[in-house]
Amino acid sequence: MTSNPPTAQQDVLPSEHPGDLDRHDPEREIAARAVAFRNWGRWGEDDRLGTLNHIDDAKRVAAAGLVRTGRTISLSMAFDMSGPQKGWRRRTNPVHTMLDTGTDAERGQGFPHGLGGADDVIAMPLQCATQWDGLGHIFDHGFAWNGRRAGDVVTSEGDLVTGIEHAASVIVSRGVLLDLGRHLRPETGELEDGYAISVADLERCIQAQGASSAVGRGDIVLVRTGQFGRARREGWGDYAGGPAPGLSLTTAGWLHRTEIAAIATDTWGFEVRPNEFDVPAFQPLHQVVIPNLGLTIGEMWNLEELGTACAESGRFDFLLAAPPLPITGAVGSPVNPVAVL
Amino acid sequence: MTSNPPTAQQDVLPSEHPGDLDRHDPEREIAARAVAFRNWGRWGEDDRLGTLNHIDDAKRVAAAGLVRTGRTISLSMAFDMSGPQKGWRRRTNPVHTMLDTGTDAERGQGFPHGLGGADDVIAMPLQCATQWDGLGHIFDHGFAWNGRRAGDVVTSEGDLVTGIEHAASVIVSRGVLLDLGRHLRPETGELEDGYAISVADLERCIQAQGASSAVGRGDIVLVRTGQFGRARREGWGDYAGGPAPGLSLTTAGWLHRTEIAAIATDTWGFEVRPNEFDVPAFQPLHQVVIPNLGLTIGEMWNLEELGTACAESGRFDFLLAAPPLPITGAVGSPVNPVAVL
Amino acid sequence: MTSNPPTAQQDVLPSEHPGDLDRHDPEREIAARAVAFRNWGRWGEDDRLGTLNHIDDAKRVAAAGLVRTGRTISLSMAFDMSGPQKGWRRRTNPVHTMLDTGTDAERGQGFPHGLGGADDVIAMPLQCATQWDGLGHIFDHGFAWNGRRAGDVVTSEGDLVTGIEHAASVIVSRGVLLDLGRHLRPETGELEDGYAISVADLERCIQAQGASSAVGRGDIVLVRTGQFGRARREGWGDYAGGPAPGLSLTTAGWLHRTEIAAIATDTWGFEVRPNEFDVPAFQPLHQVVIPNLGLTIGEMWNLEELGTACAESGRFDFLLAAPPLPITGAVGSPVNPVAVL
Amino acid sequence: MTSNPPTAQQDVLPSEHPGDLDRHDPEREIAARAVAFRNWGRWGEDDRLGTLNHIDDAKRVAAAGLVRTGRTISLSMAFDMSGPQKGWRRRTNPVHTMLDTGTDAERGQGFPHGLGGADDVIAMPLQCATQWDGLGHIFDHGFAWNGRRAGDVVTSEGDLVTGIEHAASVIVSRGVLLDLGRHLRPETGELEDGYAISVADLERCIQAQGASSAVGRGDIVLVRTGQFGRARREGWGDYAGGPAPGLSLTTAGWLHRTEIAAIATDTWGFEVRPNEFDVPAFQPLHQVVIPNLGLTIGEMWNLEELGTACAESGRFDFLLAAPPLPITGAVGSPVNPVAVL
Repeated sequence: MTSNPPTAQQDVLPSEHPGDLDRHDPEREIAARAVAFRNWGRWGEDDRLGTLNHIDDAKRVAAAGLVRTGRTISLSMAFDMSGPQKGWRRRTNPVHTMLDTGTDAERGQGFPHGLGGADDVIAMPLQCATQWDGLGHIFDHGFAWNGRRAGDVVTSEGDLVTGIEHAASVIVSRGVLLDLGRHLRPETGELEDGYAISVADLERCIQAQGASSAVGRGDIVLVRTGQFGRARREGWGDYAGGPAPGLSLTTAGWLHRTEIAAIATDTWGFEVRPNEFDVPAFQPLHQVVIPNLGLTIGEMWNLEELGTACAESGRFDFLLAAPPLPITGAVGSPVNPVAVL
Repeated sequence: MTSNPPTAQQDVLPSEHPGDLDRHDPEREIAARAVAFRNWGRWGEDDRLGTLNHIDDAKRVAAAGLVRTGRTISLSMAFDMSGPQKGWRRRTNPVHTMLDTGTDAERGQGFPHGLGGADDVIAMPLQCATQWDGLGHIFDHGFAWNGRRAGDVVTSEGDLVTGIEHAASVIVSRGVLLDLGRHLRPETGELEDGYAISVADLERCIQAQGASSAVGRGDIVLVRTGQFGRARREGWGDYAGGPAPGLSLTTAGWLHRTEIAAIATDTWGFEVRPNEFDVPAFQPLHQVVIPNLGLTIGEMWNLEELGTACAESGRFDFLLAAPPLPITGAVGSPVNPVAVL
Repeated sequence: MTSNPPTAQQDVLPSEHPGDLDRHDPEREIAARAVAFRNWGRWGEDDRLGTLNHIDDAKRVAAAGLVRTGRTISLSMAFDMSGPQKGWRRRTNPVHTMLDTGTDAERGQGFPHGLGGADDVIAMPLQCATQWDGLGHIFDHGFAWNGRRAGDVVTSEGDLVTGIEHAASVIVSRGVLLDLGRHLRPETGELEDGYAISVADLERCIQAQGASSAVGRGDIVLVRTGQFGRARREGWGDYAGGPAPGLSLTTAGWLHRTEIAAIATDTWGFEVRPNEFDVPAFQPLHQVVIPNLGLTIGEMWNLEELGTACAESGRFDFLLAAPPLPITGAVGSPVNPVAVL
Repeated sequence: MTSNPPTAQQDVLPSEHPGDLDRHDPEREIAARAVAFRNWGRWGEDDRLGTLNHIDDAKRVAAAGLVRTGRTISLSMAFDMSGPQKGWRRRTNPVHTMLDTGTDAERGQGFPHGLGGADDVIAMPLQCATQWDGLGHIFDHGFAWNGRRAGDVVTSEGDLVTGIEHAASVIVSRGVLLDLGRHLRPETGELEDGYAISVADLERCIQAQGASSAVGRGDIVLVRTGQFGRARREGWGDYAGGPAPGLSLTTAGWLHRTEIAAIATDTWGFEVRPNEFDVPAFQPLHQVVIPNLGLTIGEMWNLEELGTACAESGRFDFLLAAPPLPITGAVGSPVNPVAVL
């Protein structure tokens, strides 16, 4: 698996029209974009942050200036057994148990002066619910972000180089909601499963939503498809891994040239499912953007309340604070992102 | 344990001088403050937030206006096996394991087109590292926040009423650092273990630090003792449960009348340890403020970098975003609080 | 819930004909059997073992004497994510993860002289797969085995009185397979879901199988329905909690008078599902036999290979070793029971 | 790490005198024994059991014939937070939590007809307490049992070839206690930490104990040092990884030629600690016997009661049933071994 990564230069940038993809050659379509948009070395040999480097302090000052009403919206789903996980790749829903309870406290727990207490414990995959994918989450032909060998980065001890803890103080910036669900399907507000969001879709959505949704350097883009709301309404079904609307592989160039810091969707897997190939393929856009662009990706974000709020106000940008838990060596983190409007 | 809670009214408010405490009667000293400062019913019978209700949207707009430089500081310690837990009450350090690794990916994981991936899992007590204590964490004579019976609130299924998920979109406000370590011990910046911080200490610290550290309604107060830095430098020792500087039981009235939304310290247990009694006692201030005031408490916050930054700038307030993970029914949550200066 | 348990004496023993059950009054049908067959106090006030007391050393000597061929059969299902759990009551399948791997070892783990190592971790409900139910697993109107109050026995700290660790050196005895699947359905060897095994069924099966299947004091009875094999062949479906063949509530008297030490089935829940009532009911036989008889119950035992072996040899008894893991305070234990033929 | 394993033949077998070891060359001392005693291919290319193949059905019949009194002794320590683990290599003590309790049941859990229930969960390293080390637990220069490459055997998915589940129906045989503690230190019954048990020690112990302790093909040998009892009496201290009595590296040949099926000790790590070298070394005997001999090793077995019983009776062999939990792909298993005397 650790042959050299493709490096040949290309004269022409890969197409941004989903229809141009060669649906029988994922390897080539992925490689073309990996090579064209690779950021390796852009922030030095020791970089641990990738495109999160696009956020600077000035960006955060500007983001704080977006706060008008102070209304704060959590973009997290519930962390509990009602989640969508069914065991694929040992991913379960979070199991939360109590070490002490109020029922115990009523009967006495051995503390003095009438004190009682309750403690708790959780066991969960870091990818089970609303999350950030760290830079060590995906590899391309055995290579990780910045051109490192996958096995030098992530062992059983965790991500020794680009663990999510390095982003602990970074992910506060301007957030921009691109409500593709409402834009493309005004009647329902929800994209159908299998819909591949193209660059043209993204750009038209920005234009339609107006100036507050311009996307640029250091922004964190939130793409609402509406699938999360549908799943919550109709049952998770195959939400975790099944058909879903999502970004087309052909958006890789847009994700690169806009210089966004991070992106999140309200779906399980960020990109369109099934993937855009007629031969076996799995999450090709992940393979391009995580190890090659160094892009941090959020998944299973609950954008329902935010979508409604932005639609009502006509403003689509806000202060976004979404710091991951600094779990040493983690390739992802559960997160409760908050948008402050 | 579920005798009626003390309710008798008092003519005189409890003393705010630690020396006045009857060190042989924790029961009475606790009850006096519980009764005097109880907020039950203040926000209605159905309240789930307690003093977090002091934060409103206008407060958050003002807090966002505090952002000057954009510098962002994480206030979380590392979540890993290097933490301070030794097993007391089944509290372990976080155990993080991998479901897939880069070493596996190099050898091939069965994915198509050169894709490789790494996933991970965590098992941890919610009280193991930087955290919020939820309102269901502590009981007073079998009663929980707002006068509910403990056993009606927290069962083995978790906190059915005041679970931390209810605070998911709430905890963004103005943060104020009170650096008692630097104020009281300018030479070392660290309070000695067993030092009980009094109301007088708090007020003099505010006065000394200047206008930016005024404390009022809706603020989140961060009390730096310096113990965290000492523990990191010298080893955890008995950090988890042993001697520590912290708030005196006599600060309960100040915590009430300032109408702060929440408070956090850089110590394991918020209040001074050993507790201020010569007979068996355990966390009496918790017993007053969590179930009676409805105060949300943060513990094991890393205030070292923030302390230095505030000392250098002379400004002690900032935007604080510290949303808990919405773990359904949790009596606490790990958190990565960020201060945006 | 902790009203006094029913204690009135009865003149007539409850019927052993399933058709005689009043399908609208589970409360009364349960109470009749609880009272009639209650073993409270039989082995003293401090007893922690219930019917396991029926096993004595002489019984084990005799059991060892049953070993003829030495063939040993594991009666455990696999402990992994392929199991039947779907999250009901937070029961997941076992999650097994690695702390170190061979892929890591090949790349070097920092050990000297070419040593490499692999370690692992498991997180699992104790009731997730092949298991023993301990005496603290089920309560009757707030009472546990031997008449203790449920809350005095099992708190969040576990079963403080009858934890499974007390049986650590006990569960080795004569095992007897009653292959109801083969006996009642010779053509398929499998009972249909919903079939309630009666006392008459048990007795006729014993008669048909011959002398080696006589059941008496201290025996561990294994009831094969064939459902496990069907589930493995056709998919778990609703194996965990759904329809299943199993013992009728009316077998409580037989379970008592035979003086067996323990019983196990190849189904999720030991007794017939749906339960034998037309009004809401849940596991009524558990309610009779665990807290009242003090009977230890095994569930999800894989009796397929044993069934075939016994059918071929015409011998149905063997040495059975099924010691639980001594998990302090556990109300159950995963177990790998072995039959030595 | 995956250079070819040493294969050169030797004319002279390695010394069995601990004093002959070159304490500056663990690499060579290990290799000499690995080559001399390697069992690769002995049971075919597909073998998953190693020396457990020495147990056959006739052996088990004979073992059952050893049962005289029926007294059964559990050889397991308690599985709880009181264990010896302190976090090294993320090894914690078992964390056992409740999903439901009796305190809850007393207050009502929503079940019909007065039913109440308690369930529980465990999270634990498989190496945390009384255990079997599986064949995938240790590698020699990147090679696993039977000459397989370590990375082909144990990935993050577990041991894909020699997982402990393959031994589920195997580990029932004749057990023999060699009580080195009593034999070498009759006054205390306990070997001092750092004592390296030699072949001469083993042989003299057998001779002294008499005919019932003869060791041969298919036996499971239990070596009591007394350290477990000392640790339980004086506190664990550095039991997990620190100084301990144990087998010398020079016993590898005896472990091979006796054709024992498995061996277990009452210590954390089977072999003497510190290891017998003056340069960095770690568990060299493991490196010889697990991947090269294919020997299954038990650790942290509680041999105290058994030691007393055997000393009293003068008989040192018994029926031993120690089936591992069939955790798919596990490189070890918690176990409650039982000796039936």
